Amino acid sequence: MRPTPSTVPPQAAAPGPSLAERYRQVRTATERLAAPLSAEDCCVQSMPDASPVKWHLAHTTWFFETFILEPHEPGFHPFDPAFRVFFNSYYQGVGPQHPRPQRGLITRPALETVRAWRAEVDVRMERLLEGIEADGPVARLLELGLQHEQQHQELIVTDIKHLLWCNPGWPTYHPALPEALARDGLHKGGVPAQQWQRIEGGLAQVGHAGAGFAFDNELPRHTVYVQPCELGTRPVNNAQYLAFIEDGGYRHPALWLAEGWDWLRSQHIAHPLYWRQDAQGWSEFTLAGARPLAPAQPVAHLSYYEADAYARWAGARLPTEAEWEVAAAGLGTTDGHFADAGVLHPLPAAAGADATGLQQMFGDVWEWTQSSYAPYPGFAPAVGAVGEYNGKFMVNQYVLRGGSCATPAGHVRASYRNFFPTGARWQFSGLRLARDG
Amino acid sequence: MRPTPSTVPPQAAAPGPSLAERYRQVRTATERLAAPLSAEDCCVQSMPDASPVKWHLAHTTWFFETFILEPHEPGFHPFDPAFRVFFNSYYQGVGPQHPRPQRGLITRPALETVRAWRAEVDVRMERLLEGIEADGPVARLLELGLQHEQQHQELIVTDIKHLLWCNPGWPTYHPALPEALARDGLHKGGVPAQQWQRIEGGLAQVGHAGAGFAFDNELPRHTVYVQPCELGTRPVNNAQYLAFIEDGGYRHPALWLAEGWDWLRSQHIAHPLYWRQDAQGWSEFTLAGARPLAPAQPVAHLSYYEADAYARWAGARLPTEAEWEVAAAGLGTTDGHFADAGVLHPLPAAAGADATGLQQMFGDVWEWTQSSYAPYPGFAPAVGAVGEYNGKFMVNQYVLRGGSCATPAGHVRASYRNFFPTGARWQFSGLRLARDG
Amino acid sequence: MRPTPSTVPPQAAAPGPSLAERYRQVRTATERLAAPLSAEDCCVQSMPDASPVKWHLAHTTWFFETFILEPHEPGFHPFDPAFRVFFNSYYQGVGPQHPRPQRGLITRPALETVRAWRAEVDVRMERLLEGIEADGPVARLLELGLQHEQQHQELIVTDIKHLLWCNPGWPTYHPALPEALARDGLHKGGVPAQQWQRIEGGLAQVGHAGAGFAFDNELPRHTVYVQPCELGTRPVNNAQYLAFIEDGGYRHPALWLAEGWDWLRSQHIAHPLYWRQDAQGWSEFTLAGARPLAPAQPVAHLSYYEADAYARWAGARLPTEAEWEVAAAGLGTTDGHFADAGVLHPLPAAAGADATGLQQMFGDVWEWTQSSYAPYPGFAPAVGAVGEYNGKFMVNQYVLRGGSCATPAGHVRASYRNFFPTGARWQFSGLRLARDG
Amino acid sequence: MRPTPSTVPPQAAAPGPSLAERYRQVRTATERLAAPLSAEDCCVQSMPDASPVKWHLAHTTWFFETFILEPHEPGFHPFDPAFRVFFNSYYQGVGPQHPRPQRGLITRPALETVRAWRAEVDVRMERLLEGIEADGPVARLLELGLQHEQQHQELIVTDIKHLLWCNPGWPTYHPALPEALARDGLHKGGVPAQQWQRIEGGLAQVGHAGAGFAFDNELPRHTVYVQPCELGTRPVNNAQYLAFIEDGGYRHPALWLAEGWDWLRSQHIAHPLYWRQDAQGWSEFTLAGARPLAPAQPVAHLSYYEADAYARWAGARLPTEAEWEVAAAGLGTTDGHFADAGVLHPLPAAAGADATGLQQMFGDVWEWTQSSYAPYPGFAPAVGAVGEYNGKFMVNQYVLRGGSCATPAGHVRASYRNFFPTGARWQFSGLRLARDG
Repeated sequence: MRPTPSTVPPQAAAPGPSLAERYRQVRTATERLAAPLSAEDCCVQSMPDASPVKWHLAHTTWFFETFILEPHEPGFHPFDPAFRVFFNSYYQGVGPQHPRPQRGLITRPALETVRAWRAEVDVRMERLLEGIEADGPVARLLELGLQHEQQHQELIVTDIKHLLWCNPGWPTYHPALPEALARDGLHKGGVPAQQWQRIEGGLAQVGHAGAGFAFDNELPRHTVYVQPCELGTRPVNNAQYLAFIEDGGYRHPALWLAEGWDWLRSQHIAHPLYWRQDAQGWSEFTLAGARPLAPAQPVAHLSYYEADAYARWAGARLPTEAEWEVAAAGLGTTDGHFADAGVLHPLPAAAGADATGLQQMFGDVWEWTQSSYAPYPGFAPAVGAVGEYNGKFMVNQYVLRGGSCATPAGHVRASYRNFFPTGARWQFSGLRLARDG
Repeated sequence: MRPTPSTVPPQAAAPGPSLAERYRQVRTATERLAAPLSAEDCCVQSMPDASPVKWHLAHTTWFFETFILEPHEPGFHPFDPAFRVFFNSYYQGVGPQHPRPQRGLITRPALETVRAWRAEVDVRMERLLEGIEADGPVARLLELGLQHEQQHQELIVTDIKHLLWCNPGWPTYHPALPEALARDGLHKGGVPAQQWQRIEGGLAQVGHAGAGFAFDNELPRHTVYVQPCELGTRPVNNAQYLAFIEDGGYRHPALWLAEGWDWLRSQHIAHPLYWRQDAQGWSEFTLAGARPLAPAQPVAHLSYYEADAYARWAGARLPTEAEWEVAAAGLGTTDGHFADAGVLHPLPAAAGADATGLQQMFGDVWEWTQSSYAPYPGFAPAVGAVGEYNGKFMVNQYVLRGGSCATPAGHVRASYRNFFPTGARWQFSGLRLARDG
Repeated sequence: MRPTPSTVPPQAAAPGPSLAERYRQVRTATERLAAPLSAEDCCVQSMPDASPVKWHLAHTTWFFETFILEPHEPGFHPFDPAFRVFFNSYYQGVGPQHPRPQRGLITRPALETVRAWRAEVDVRMERLLEGIEADGPVARLLELGLQHEQQHQELIVTDIKHLLWCNPGWPTYHPALPEALARDGLHKGGVPAQQWQRIEGGLAQVGHAGAGFAFDNELPRHTVYVQPCELGTRPVNNAQYLAFIEDGGYRHPALWLAEGWDWLRSQHIAHPLYWRQDAQGWSEFTLAGARPLAPAQPVAHLSYYEADAYARWAGARLPTEAEWEVAAAGLGTTDGHFADAGVLHPLPAAAGADATGLQQMFGDVWEWTQSSYAPYPGFAPAVGAVGEYNGKFMVNQYVLRGGSCATPAGHVRASYRNFFPTGARWQFSGLRLARDG
Repeated sequence: MRPTPSTVPPQAAAPGPSLAERYRQVRTATERLAAPLSAEDCCVQSMPDASPVKWHLAHTTWFFETFILEPHEPGFHPFDPAFRVFFNSYYQGVGPQHPRPQRGLITRPALETVRAWRAEVDVRMERLLEGIEADGPVARLLELGLQHEQQHQELIVTDIKHLLWCNPGWPTYHPALPEALARDGLHKGGVPAQQWQRIEGGLAQVGHAGAGFAFDNELPRHTVYVQPCELGTRPVNNAQYLAFIEDGGYRHPALWLAEGWDWLRSQHIAHPLYWRQDAQGWSEFTLAGARPLAPAQPVAHLSYYEADAYARWAGARLPTEAEWEVAAAGLGTTDGHFADAGVLHPLPAAAGADATGLQQMFGDVWEWTQSSYAPYPGFAPAVGAVGEYNGKFMVNQYVLRGGSCATPAGHVRASYRNFFPTGARWQFSGLRLARDG
């Protein structure tokens, strides 16, 4: 499942808001996401892969208390020593951890205590930040902590979505999807055709370059040789995916990886997570409740197996992460539809999306690649607990690229590598087709 | 696990408080038990066998709404139609049920909504009760609903105890055990000896007799032939049980039922639930937190396997339920230490407990018998959903007798049959020895 | 699962063949059962509850080597010391055991080595038996070993039936069912009606009496009080059971114990083990291959849950073991259709079976009772490993009575108690109805 | 687990023995491997990942009957139509398959029947081969069938090793390891030091080239960019691995992938498969029984997790498959210690192995690479059932290179890709270190 890649980046954040301002912005954004939820909503864990919202609120605070205040604050004392164990995710170097599948049993501390902890840490952090160098080691740890908190912001969205979906009443997180989704009406006359964008092959550089923050799994930047290929101009949408279902996609073993076929049969899977078919047709659970399936909207909540099977059915394949990165880096922008828009659901392609040119590379849905998550040549883990386990998730997971409608704006970039096991579906995970060029 | 035995009793409750008064007393007692708990505490389910406190608050209300208001209130309308499914435990005749292991995922309705539901149902019930016959069918259903609610009061105590114990901080439900427990000091000089009380054999009558309420599993009263035997004068206490542990009780297969030995090994069990051994010695988790093991206190939280193994080690056996009932009926009282005392933990035997005479037959701890839970000869299930499943738990469970420190006073009697699977330990379950006479 | 009840009986076998003759008869009968099977058939274990035939051949030999030759043969040396562990079933007092679910991995020793072991032990046993007292302790151990071996003879039949059924080719053990089964033709015109036989209630004696052999679980003989009741004159047959299926018996939760309903749903069960429905109708797998379902034949291969549900559907119940024993003891005979007939499949009721009088109490199918397997009052385990675990299976199992078509003739009696867990179906287990009288 | 990669190769085998001669050689080699085993040994399945030897004998025959005789033999009729299902491994295009975990329940057909089937198919195949073109489609299918059979030869060795190891008597497959293993004595004075061989980076070609046979997963040959690096001159040996164990390698989470740490803890793993520690020190189970651990012998039977953890502990990493292939292709030979030597156990490095130059790249042990098993750019599955599933195992498995002491000589080459899931240990799987150059 989603780890929390973490390391001390080689260079601190680009100029912009002050450290304290940026700290305040990120911390506030987290609380805004939790605001519509009750203490009960925040306490419960719907499955071992997901965590309670209260746990996310606490664990991100634990990060600042443990890695910044404890070593750098004069006269440091913890808010509550027990929290060191309760809210440690997987840092063996920090000490023992409360078992992940039992995070939902922690009814004490109460949500309000966790909020009080956040408030106290924020006061102490902001005091500490006043005196630090903009480019020194504490600033770099701060940046790491903020990037880490942004990753948990996305998990707050996806984990609460899963919990609310488990409730047979399909309750809502926010009242209604914004009118942006009405754009779908533009496509009433038909779904835009799939176009292809050629990617020239040859030697290329991938991995992070430049001054901004990056996780260590994006490093070192290095040379790869890429074959010429073509990428779909936009992510696969619901209409396309529905055609796959209606063509018996979930019933033909020849379309599936052997392991995917076993997965599908043992779990009785016949459609993406959050879809439902009844007498009224297909609908989808969203954070604003159920709504009829929108054909032009990128398909989301697919496992790797489903993305792979769809691509095979379509006579194509998933892109490699190098192909994706080369194409994305060429755009010169990371603009897209992210969590800050408040929709928390993928948007349909724009009207012109059947024209040429890559659309929606960033935002909307994470795009599965066919690349397993592996260290880049020369990858070296950072020293100490904060970077202790940088590579420890690099096995049996696959890379997704581009961010989603639940990712904070500004968080991703062309070299950003997300990763999940092949059966994970509760993220906003979709796909873009590729084929040999 | 604990079912909710339910049937229409042959005769309604004995004279005493009015129906409405009694209704109010029982309903208020339930809320008093939940009062020290937060919404988070009330929402979470610690294991499939246990239910959230919120679920207990709701399900007991569902019972009155479904079985009394719906058929008997003019112009009935449900508080929320979805609750019919959410809070149905296992009444297939009423319709589908939310899966038991997922009761803890129901963060909506909120606790406050469930409390509002309780309040509304209480108003409507009290209005209804004004016009009904003291001895008619509605009164009988009411009595059943109140007995049912009392059973759930006990489960609120045992389920919240299990949840709090799962929290590594071992938080407390109430601040401190009352000074009653200090009585243990009386035994500092040594634990009182085990005495035996002879039970004459021969033909006897068991099962409920007389005018008061009884569950259908206590009926019909019938003849049995009992062999002469002896019962321990009091339940086995912690000091006795500790001697068993220290003698290697958990390491000798010859002391255990074969299935018990497999259970112990696969679950790595070496002491009763809620016990812990560290450098300071043995301690026990209580609803008031951890405390050193009190030697003279009845041992609790044993599985059937442990009770059986202890008895074998002690050169004795578990009593049959007939032996227990014949002995208990002879006492002429059901007095004992029950939940109303507010301690919610078993008390040590009184100073004179090494004298003759049966002590603590009622209250303190449920006593495992060697009898499997089976229908009495002539047992006939009641008609309709309310009694639909009276006997459906009569397999692979064993009978416990006498009530515990978590049972509401007045709820049990000599003929009362509780029952649990052999591996259950989260109830206040102990034992009393028996031997052939 | 089927234990091997074992104890030193209070009195040795009744006069008849000499000890050596009797030994030879029983040992030869075992080998006759294995004769139609290949070394491969004898090696494989189809499920943890079943054992390979080779294991049965070896374990019964282990019993004589361990409990008779080792202590009583001058200059004893084991055939192979490793066999002491390999072929110990569950005698913890003898030492460690090879894990039960891995009995099928023992390809060495080979079947022929096990046969050589049997032959050598037989020579040594027969030499030893020449010099022993007909009524002494060795003779009593011998009788126990022979009774033990007869129990394993039945398991050879039921375990190989299960293994062959697992093979999709449904291969056969013996070529054809004898013509006795053609009797079913007699009932072409209709299935004989169910009659009832009244059993007078009152005080009765149950448990073994007299001079012959009995297992310790049949002792001590003791007084019980039985309510008046009625028993079905014959076991429930396939036609009756089919009517239950066709009436939706497997689809109505109200007919089932709650645990049985869970069992049925989680295991997708909709008919007895070994039944199959296809375009040609219902057929049944037998040791002679598939054959169309014979309506007048006693239904077999039911779990306790199915027997209980059928009885409830039929407006009746299962008998208690005391009711069954009182009725069976009154017959004055244990004649019936047993394994020695060579059919190894239950026979239809005789033509006159719709007349009064109890039919087929012995042989054909084991009859589930509603009684859990529990110690009789005063039950005392024997001393030493041979009797070490007499009672260790007395929990969560239910008693079956009367023997089956796979039981050796002469092995059972009115007081004989067989027992299995509620979900076991691979024995020839059926039922006889009872109702309150 | 080990699939059976299968496709129609672009070009048939190089000149050498005639098709019929080659067919006979391969088929005979298979039977020679099974010759020391009894029918019981050949029937049993020790775990779902392994198959019975009889199944291997049958499945390889099924391949020729199904893919060559059925479409190409005039008047074809199957030996037994039921075998089409019994011995289909995973070819969904051919039809249903007997469930893999139940292969060991197939006691019928008997081993001798399977041998008769082999003999008949061999006669018919050899007759057919007389009339076919040396380079036509049937010849290409034949070559595929023979390569497939060689893969199963290796599995016969590893599967029977696992089965014999499950037997607590640790029986042997062949009487004694040949004296080749005595070479270890050469190293009594100390284990040869680890040397490094530099691999120049840059653009390189990987994948199969030339006229000989290759599986489709080795195609197409394509360009990659490799970073400069160094490879260990020989595989890691037992002495090195023991140092890792003695340094607490299995107790430090920081050395392990997170998933590997969970694997190790849940399965209680503390050393390679087949190792055992007792009072005499470390020993290893081999096909010739137990022998003391030989320090200079390549370590075998490691999972990916263990290989990865060892490399991290040693300050190195696993090679990528491209690095390995570039290095191996440079050797200009595939000579090594393979199954044909009859040892079926890895040999110690030669005396000069602490000199420079790559040793033991081929044979002895399969070497885990850090590369997940993925399609090469441009990979295209073949048409029809024979190539239906060429890529269906390309997820969550990792590539191993070089062949082992159980691989038939001549079967592997520099481009050969074997693959297994990360937890698999029953193959002869070891590792060679790599580090950035």
